[in-house]
Amino acid sequence: ISTSLLFQSHIIFLSLGLKWLNMKFSEALYTIDSALLNEKFVKAPEGLYEPIDYTLGNGGKRIRPSLVIMACDLFSGEIVDAIKPALGIEIFHNFTLLHDDIMDNAPIRRGKPTVQTKWNDNTAILSGDAMLIKAYQYIATTPAEYLEQVLDVFSRTGLLVCEGQQYDMDFECRNDVSVAEYMKMIELKTAVLLGAALKIGAIIGGAKRSDALNLYRFGTDIGLAFQLQDDLLDVFANQSEFGKKIGGDIVSNKKTFLLIHALEKAEGTTKAELNRWLAATEYEPAEKIAAITGIYTDLGLDSLSREVMNGYYQHAIETIRKICVEPESINDLIEVADLLMARTK
Amino acid sequence: ISTSLLFQSHIIFLSLGLKWLNMKFSEALYTIDSALLNEKFVKAPEGLYEPIDYTLGNGGKRIRPSLVIMACDLFSGEIVDAIKPALGIEIFHNFTLLHDDIMDNAPIRRGKPTVQTKWNDNTAILSGDAMLIKAYQYIATTPAEYLEQVLDVFSRTGLLVCEGQQYDMDFECRNDVSVAEYMKMIELKTAVLLGAALKIGAIIGGAKRSDALNLYRFGTDIGLAFQLQDDLLDVFANQSEFGKKIGGDIVSNKKTFLLIHALEKAEGTTKAELNRWLAATEYEPAEKIAAITGIYTDLGLDSLSREVMNGYYQHAIETIRKICVEPESINDLIEVADLLMARTK
Repeated sequence: ISTSLLFQSHIIFLSLGLKWLNMKFSEALYTIDSALLNEKFVKAPEGLYEPIDYTLGNGGKRIRPSLVIMACDLFSGEIVDAIKPALGIEIFHNFTLLHDDIMDNAPIRRGKPTVQTKWNDNTAILSGDAMLIKAYQYIATTPAEYLEQVLDVFSRTGLLVCEGQQYDMDFECRNDVSVAEYMKMIELKTAVLLGAALKIGAIIGGAKRSDALNLYRFGTDIGLAFQLQDDLLDVFANQSEFGKKIGGDIVSNKKTFLLIHALEKAEGTTKAELNRWLAATEYEPAEKIAAITGIYTDLGLDSLSREVMNGYYQHAIETIRKICVEPESINDLIEVADLLMARTK
Repeated sequence: ISTSLLFQSHIIFLSLGLKWLNMKFSEALYTIDSALLNEKFVKAPEGLYEPIDYTLGNGGKRIRPSLVIMACDLFSGEIVDAIKPALGIEIFHNFTLLHDDIMDNAPIRRGKPTVQTKWNDNTAILSGDAMLIKAYQYIATTPAEYLEQVLDVFSRTGLLVCEGQQYDMDFECRNDVSVAEYMKMIELKTAVLLGAALKIGAIIGGAKRSDALNLYRFGTDIGLAFQLQDDLLDVFANQSEFGKKIGGDIVSNKKTFLLIHALEKAEGTTKAELNRWLAATEYEPAEKIAAITGIYTDLGLDSLSREVMNGYYQHAIETIRKICVEPESINDLIEVADLLMARTK
């Protein structure tokens, strides 16, 4: 990992328009960035290890490993034991992106060619496998007294993430996905790893079982709220503040919370119009985006989405407040959640 | 895993014309088959877990997990602690076959369609990932006092196996692979996992470090000898006793020990003839097989291969004899090596 990457995660946050960084979070990010800098991934055969370095060096917000550090810090002043396991979580996360990009045939990730584009599919498969094993090597540095417990959380979460990706692929060929199924899918694919990062940090920090569990729930609820926000922003974001092009999900018929709800709720001519746009093969993208956005608004899905999202957020905050530590140290994690949800004070 | 599979591994050995089975090995096989029978892999989403059941239920000789059990048994009467870790080794081995089959575009494995043929590439990638995580879950059941050590051997071996596969793919596009490089590749791709199976069994059995290491070396040497035998049998086997069609490696220009040696040793008209056959696109397979077999024989490569193979075998036997246990219990493992090398007494 090259030195130019130090603070890169900070720069990403600043470029997202997030003008302040919580101090504890900033420290955790710095710890992770510095630790990653000291790791050497490239060795022979280069065809196997270079893509790992490329993937890990390609940025990312380093949210998950920072959460491991912050959760550990809640219960123990000694975060050093959590650093390598935290990197294990980040390596695992990047492994899932690498393999997902093959399955989704994605050409670009974080503004750069994906591994299967820069190299080829076989390289992406095999380097991903090696990354998953590497992730376990980092997780295995957990102090002996917590190793069994941390391994258990890590492996169970890993399988859940695979299940989430499988459901996501299954849903592509189905037109009858329910909102409940969608929520389950995003919970598995996105939310549980945020929960697991916090739980693993808590375990290494010596937290009691109920506190670790409440952190897990806080993480998954924030993850769900974050994913719903992602679905909302694709349609209703302010283009000048939004990094991506608005309406990408609409153009690709992506089954988001909004579309699945619309398919459930729309009736009569609205339903016919929705189905016509979904089936359309030749159209002006801007026209499709405007039409479907109109349907979402008419059905009240923007406010419904915000309501559900706020529900998860509020539940997350209630849950984390139950943890037996100084209320002030809890505030640091809540601020990170706010940062993720782009809620500025 | 369905009940019809119980004893299937025994039937495979009998069908290979191996008329006797060492008692300890037979017991270990039975332990593994029975344990595998009790494991449930299928749950929702079926698209993820069915291919795992399919892969694990598709037979195989169960050599590696049986070696875990036998190695543990050398040092401890209590093999029960080794059973689940042994299954972890078998699941890992089958994961590598699953992903290798995608990379090699192989339509058939053990007489049945490969996962990417029966389902598709994405399913094969994702189910393989889940299998690797499952393998770790089984390895993680190792008793706490040995867990760190076993995890370390398992992860390091896993990375070596990935390296072996990478070298194997790299070699396909190269015409200057040396014999030393080839030996390194087969050591990584095939031999180290046999060594690791024995070492992990030994560790769980409470073996001292030097004994575990000598078992590892015994396993890798037998693995190398076995792979050289595989290369030899493809060309020089008795067709009536050989399961596959003779000459498959020759027809596909596979870079075996024989071909790499021939490319190094052949000169003048022999070299020209060899290169002509390697470049040929239209030919009668039997003619190519006869011609290249003739070149191998003329260059003395059949006896050279046997010599090198026997060297590894003898070295393996010398190494295992150094282990501090009753010489008779060593004999069981030597008999398994003989069984693998089809050396009948």
